[in-house]
Amino acid sequence: MNRTALLAALPLAFAVPAWGQEEAEPVTPASIVAASAPEEWVEIDPDHILVMRLADNGSDAPRDVVIQLLPEPFSQPWVENIRTLARAHWWDGTSVYRVVDNWVAQWGGGDPELDMDPGPMPDGVLDTQGLAYPSTASDLHRPLVEEYLQNAFEGIVDSRIAWLDGHAGFPRTGYYADLEVWVDGWPISAGDGGETVWPVHCYAHVGVARDLAPDTGTGSELYAVIGHAPRQLDRNIAVVGRVIEGIEHLSTLPRGTGDAGVYEDRAEDTPIEWVRLASDVEESEHWRYEYLDTTSDSFAAYVANRANRHDAFYEVPAGGVDICNVQVPIRQIPAE
Amino acid sequence: MNRTALLAALPLAFAVPAWGQEEAEPVTPASIVAASAPEEWVEIDPDHILVMRLADNGSDAPRDVVIQLLPEPFSQPWVENIRTLARAHWWDGTSVYRVVDNWVAQWGGGDPELDMDPGPMPDGVLDTQGLAYPSTASDLHRPLVEEYLQNAFEGIVDSRIAWLDGHAGFPRTGYYADLEVWVDGWPISAGDGGETVWPVHCYAHVGVARDLAPDTGTGSELYAVIGHAPRQLDRNIAVVGRVIEGIEHLSTLPRGTGDAGVYEDRAEDTPIEWVRLASDVEESEHWRYEYLDTTSDSFAAYVANRANRHDAFYEVPAGGVDICNVQVPIRQIPAE
Repeated sequence: MNRTALLAALPLAFAVPAWGQEEAEPVTPASIVAASAPEEWVEIDPDHILVMRLADNGSDAPRDVVIQLLPEPFSQPWVENIRTLARAHWWDGTSVYRVVDNWVAQWGGGDPELDMDPGPMPDGVLDTQGLAYPSTASDLHRPLVEEYLQNAFEGIVDSRIAWLDGHAGFPRTGYYADLEVWVDGWPISAGDGGETVWPVHCYAHVGVARDLAPDTGTGSELYAVIGHAPRQLDRNIAVVGRVIEGIEHLSTLPRGTGDAGVYEDRAEDTPIEWVRLASDVEESEHWRYEYLDTTSDSFAAYVANRANRHDAFYEVPAGGVDICNVQVPIRQIPAE
Repeated sequence: MNRTALLAALPLAFAVPAWGQEEAEPVTPASIVAASAPEEWVEIDPDHILVMRLADNGSDAPRDVVIQLLPEPFSQPWVENIRTLARAHWWDGTSVYRVVDNWVAQWGGGDPELDMDPGPMPDGVLDTQGLAYPSTASDLHRPLVEEYLQNAFEGIVDSRIAWLDGHAGFPRTGYYADLEVWVDGWPISAGDGGETVWPVHCYAHVGVARDLAPDTGTGSELYAVIGHAPRQLDRNIAVVGRVIEGIEHLSTLPRGTGDAGVYEDRAEDTPIEWVRLASDVEESEHWRYEYLDTTSDSFAAYVANRANRHDAFYEVPAGGVDICNVQVPIRQIPAE
């Protein structure tokens, strides 16, 4: 008996709820986020939000790239330099000058080999030479990381652990670390039994461009990842943030055809109108965002679902997920 | 004593070799590929190469996207349909109609919801409904996969193994499979102790767009990955190939603003001039490519180096690598 005949044989009053049950919505990452409680969201400090406005290219909307800066204890000397440079309007008039497919889009200035010089560094820029990228786990992180490690080694599955490095005899320590977790809304790796933690490179994450090691860069030249997570850069370069809105304004730019993907001619660059901390932008209330607390039950359900998609589209649950395939939900807070 | 003084104190005949030694080139993935032997390269069958020419957008060079089709035993019914559709010129005049940042660019036609209909399927298109995506390991694969498994469980490191799923008590079987290896130049996952193998989704890989499960799609609508590897699609959708040249012509397209990233207006689409098998294109000798044999010593060294970058730029070797961060070297064969 097909459905049409079944419905035809039933009075509408019965047919509708029956139909409704058959059509029950499957649980998806989106439905979990939609069902989350308001108190599970955390507002991002406006001093942690950087807005970069690219020059108008004739599109009807401004091309704004919104970057969330990395919180303590990670990369703070570089993050401080970025705040100093933004407050000095140092990036205004610089450009996006390098774009490499499946790699990075890079901007800023000060490279003597490029025909653009925004002038000397403003006062207050810190000397970052010789600083290390990983951090000693702070008191903030250690209890959480240790709990995760404990659970992991006991084989207790906590879906807020992305994945654990594991196979004895396999030389993976370091890359996948002891484990990878989310702390304060950010994906991080933890090594040395949880004593050392460092931020990772995922799609749209922002890092500090630098010359050859041991140079560490000042923060005046930055890049955003526009391809598969280049995890080999972890601990080799300072991660300082992630693009939370407008990454497409960088990922769609023409790829550079010069050395290392630098545009051959400065005329190919995309000019940057200005870069400001959200707290310094007019109508700053427009630039308010919140993220789903990564210790919340909704986030745990969100990760578990991403690791085991099984709905109208997915027939075979993966049974696991790469930490870079779990974008932490971030949304704009509507202006009152 | 600084270098300048040292050089000044030495006759040039001594200074030059000494300087040359100090400047010894570090080993990098590029240097390993450059030093590989000609006999380590394998030509790709022209019947496995698909060329898609996008409409001219005023750029000085044609926008050609070159796709290598997946060899046996993977996804062959869909690959056969793609050959049939290309030979029937079925895609000519269709378009790239969906682009989603960090996800896919999708093209083709036949979607009744879209205002474009290239007409009925040509004769010979196979019914793929109900077919499974994973393959039973063929006699071709089993010995290699079993050798890898054997080595892995004995803790012998074979750098041609990308990584092995491992931690007891961690529910990862399936996603990371038992292991992931390269076979015939392609990254694949192996499960069931090596009995089952399936192709994976990496950046630039091409798959068959479909409706909700259990629909499997015909191959008339295809997508290319333009973001972080969406591994959750593995075994849920048919991987049929990878873009080996011109991915930037898809990854730089404007992102769609309609439902699911479909352009709201067909006028936003990027028209496709034609799609042909390389063997059917005029000047077909132009479309010859070769890949670095994934069982060769040079490829093993290439993977090991990618997993442990340590050169003038990388100070901290990762100690491992994601299979999707190891692009198999592929190069064009110069026309004679």
